[in-house]
Amino acid sequence: MIIILANIIHLHERDNVGVCKGAIPAGTALIEPELTLVDDIPAMHKVALVDIPEGQPILKYGQVIGFAAKAIKAGEHVHSHNCKMGEAEKDYGFCRLARPTDLVPESERATFRGYRRANGKVGTRNYIGILTTVNCSATVAKAIAQHFTFSGELDDYPNIDGVVAFTHETGCGMRSDGEGYETLRRTFDGYARHPNFGGILMVGLGCETMQVRRVMEESGLGDTDTFQAYTIQDVGGTRKAIERGIEVLRGMLDGVNQHTRETVPASELTLAVQCGGSDAFSGITANPALGAAGDILIRHGGTVIYSETPEIFGAEHLLTQRAKTPELAQKLLDRIEWWQDYTARNDFELDNNPSPGNKAGGLTTIMEKSLGAQAKSGSTEMVGVYLYGEEVKEKGLVFMDSPGFDPVSVTGQVASGANVVCFTTGRGSAFGFKPAPSLKLASNSELYQRMQEDIDINCGGILDGEKTMQECAEEIFRVVLATASGEQTQSEKLGYGDNEFNPWKIGAVV
Amino acid sequence: MIIILANIIHLHERDNVGVCKGAIPAGTALIEPELTLVDDIPAMHKVALVDIPEGQPILKYGQVIGFAAKAIKAGEHVHSHNCKMGEAEKDYGFCRLARPTDLVPESERATFRGYRRANGKVGTRNYIGILTTVNCSATVAKAIAQHFTFSGELDDYPNIDGVVAFTHETGCGMRSDGEGYETLRRTFDGYARHPNFGGILMVGLGCETMQVRRVMEESGLGDTDTFQAYTIQDVGGTRKAIERGIEVLRGMLDGVNQHTRETVPASELTLAVQCGGSDAFSGITANPALGAAGDILIRHGGTVIYSETPEIFGAEHLLTQRAKTPELAQKLLDRIEWWQDYTARNDFELDNNPSPGNKAGGLTTIMEKSLGAQAKSGSTEMVGVYLYGEEVKEKGLVFMDSPGFDPVSVTGQVASGANVVCFTTGRGSAFGFKPAPSLKLASNSELYQRMQEDIDINCGGILDGEKTMQECAEEIFRVVLATASGEQTQSEKLGYGDNEFNPWKIGAVV
Ligand SMILES: [Ca+2]
Ligand SMILES: [Ca+2]
Ligand SMILES: [Ca+2]
Ligand SMILES: [Ca+2]
Ligand SMILES: [Ca+2]
Repeated sequence: MIIILANIIHLHERDNVGVCKGAIPAGTALIEPELTLVDDIPAMHKVALVDIPEGQPILKYGQVIGFAAKAIKAGEHVHSHNCKMGEAEKDYGFCRLARPTDLVPESERATFRGYRRANGKVGTRNYIGILTTVNCSATVAKAIAQHFTFSGELDDYPNIDGVVAFTHETGCGMRSDGEGYETLRRTFDGYARHPNFGGILMVGLGCETMQVRRVMEESGLGDTDTFQAYTIQDVGGTRKAIERGIEVLRGMLDGVNQHTRETVPASELTLAVQCGGSDAFSGITANPALGAAGDILIRHGGTVIYSETPEIFGAEHLLTQRAKTPELAQKLLDRIEWWQDYTARNDFELDNNPSPGNKAGGLTTIMEKSLGAQAKSGSTEMVGVYLYGEEVKEKGLVFMDSPGFDPVSVTGQVASGANVVCFTTGRGSAFGFKPAPSLKLASNSELYQRMQEDIDINCGGILDGEKTMQECAEEIFRVVLATASGEQTQSEKLGYGDNEFNPWKIGAVV
Repeated sequence: MIIILANIIHLHERDNVGVCKGAIPAGTALIEPELTLVDDIPAMHKVALVDIPEGQPILKYGQVIGFAAKAIKAGEHVHSHNCKMGEAEKDYGFCRLARPTDLVPESERATFRGYRRANGKVGTRNYIGILTTVNCSATVAKAIAQHFTFSGELDDYPNIDGVVAFTHETGCGMRSDGEGYETLRRTFDGYARHPNFGGILMVGLGCETMQVRRVMEESGLGDTDTFQAYTIQDVGGTRKAIERGIEVLRGMLDGVNQHTRETVPASELTLAVQCGGSDAFSGITANPALGAAGDILIRHGGTVIYSETPEIFGAEHLLTQRAKTPELAQKLLDRIEWWQDYTARNDFELDNNPSPGNKAGGLTTIMEKSLGAQAKSGSTEMVGVYLYGEEVKEKGLVFMDSPGFDPVSVTGQVASGANVVCFTTGRGSAFGFKPAPSLKLASNSELYQRMQEDIDINCGGILDGEKTMQECAEEIFRVVLATASGEQTQSEKLGYGDNEFNPWKIGAVV
């Protein structure tokens, strides 16, 4: 239960601190809660709501973010000077906080209008995709897509959302096995099977590391009415490869156009949650609102993919505590260990501790910072842990390992099966995606005003008293359902999605 | 001096082996050289032209590719069974083979029609470039470029070759310092100063690791008539950022259109040599022909950038021997050492030894294989060693460190200043580039026939007896001059160059 007070945000009923919406001077008497401020409290900083004895936990988001380094009186400023992390070992507490989700009865569940595919999955868009195994086939793929975009040939096929080329910068000059190869192959596989496509064409050059036929064999992809593949070298060059592609896709248009939307349960939704360009507001408005919206979706039987491993680093125990099984908790810790190795061998120090800027913005400990990011994941138990781009098979909250870098992370989430994306931002990310539509959620109203054409939902209204956290969560859920049913996102209106496919490249470029 | 015989290619006058153009059975009597074959010689394999005593060097490309493991008679097949590498230490022989280039007198030098820029450099094209600091500004940059491509607005500016967006997949989720950052920054810097641009716009998002203003400061780029920059967040979102870009570039059109071609010496050419999708013919036709063409350009005062460090790995002493100074030789060895570390930490084994396929194709030793690739670098002394994308300042042959992966390597070569690219291929690469035009050279006539619309020059004619190596080299040089003067390459006619900008990404994605 989240209570919004006049000037202070109380993020969780268990919390003994609140967050001041704006700077409030010492001596101010607040009505609700009835409290007189002892210190000046800067905007976005924490104030003690009750007396907190020395050594007692400081609770925000209903969770421990640190301990009182000395006795703290109600109305005092809570920050680095009086709040410290304990020296104790992290409490991984495998599964300690995992609770079965209280599902909405099937008859009462929300629905949307989606495309049910032959494999049983449900799409929210009906694109034709052109996959490329290597950068060397990018220009051919783009030329094929542009033919359909500009020729008017799609005018007779109103149910097709477009032909999209997914180009990238790798596929050769890399190892032909191992995790780099497998990560890229899984990404192709996930796109080839994604329900937001009615048809797929895969184009290679011919001599690249990622061989079209090998990828197809390893991924179990056959030549069918809706999946075709060839290489530029095999068909005799660029022009012929473009003509062949146009011809192959023309042959798919009738079939793809026959797909129409039907009413399906919200349990067919897989929502990717993502943040980028975060600010001091993200952790108290957009992220928790999105987390609460995800909780609603999960109660309706749906799935949420939470990712961005570097952001949980140092606070991974917050997720192991929510793991449904000890095996899942261990799987997550194994990924953390992989990341320690990955970053160490690449001379990168993974440091999730609050930066000086974070501290000035009111964040005191790594736990508090991580909880602000993890708020996107809501409060349900974690029922799955996946590699980047691996097919998600559970309903509920799952974790998919990925970098935090937005296009790379979302590419993996979509390969794993996400059919809608929600993206929170405080600085104002310019992001959009295909084939899964991506909604942008502003953490503050100033951003919403400034970049209104880019932003779908203003979670800053929570700070302004225009809506409660719960109202904002319900608004997000409604907009997600409408988007899944075909309503265009701001980023779709602006034409995003042709340049953001960005598969994670692991390993040396040689 | 390269002698082409009827059925046997004699790559260098010093060579004691020749390469059979096609399979020749034992017992065949050849007229020139007067020789009776002792063994069956498969196509592309080596035959001894003279008796070679045990322990004596086997010479191909005028260089030692191995030693006779037993006495070899004239007419015998020379391969793994009778040719071995010595166990001796590599002879780095710093500068041993470096000779000052015999320059063509200035009055006799070739010329081309290029664009002389304010900074003294000469361009071969007159583009307007849109650089992006991060993937997040890719869609805005593409939208601005597409406006000029499709609106017809450039019709009034006949001297402008087009507006091109250079998008990529990084710029955030990376370290904000160190070699990954510096490599990317140098790439941007090199493009911003490239003489094939009449004007540059740089667009960022605002919150990315690669900050527009920081990149400008570190690269010494100011706001001028021909260089402008802004971020999407600063101007208030996607639509405004696109409109701003169109407006800024409109303001540059008159100025850029005033640039016209003038006659300039060939010494203003910087030629990137590159290979991709090589085959067994590459090392005896296209690569040596390109090397000889580069030698001609260098004698005319020009510059050749040779790269693809993994391909010289294990045979780097062939270049240290050609280094002009010991410092350059050492600089090259330092890069080799860096690569050993880079590949080791990324679990990649850099192995340039001939593969089973290479051996079946007639390649016996790593030296022989490397010489086939290094043949692209011609025969002059090496006067410079550069980091990826670093500005080349010498005239003559220079080495720029890069991966072998074509788009990544060429992006660096162009950032370093290449204004024309020559790309050899045996399998049939589909490559093109902007802002520097890229010519494709086929290693064999079958490829040339099959992908004629993609290939500019058929070096396979050397095998067919249609031209000598030297004639082919002169043809390449002529085509390079014509291309530099504005003649379109096959890849330009096909529309390549909008998807191949591919800066080398070093380090973890986080
Ligand atoms: Ca991409
Ligand atoms: Ca992110
Ligand atoms: Ca690119
Ligand atoms: Ca190569
Ligand atoms: Ca190459």
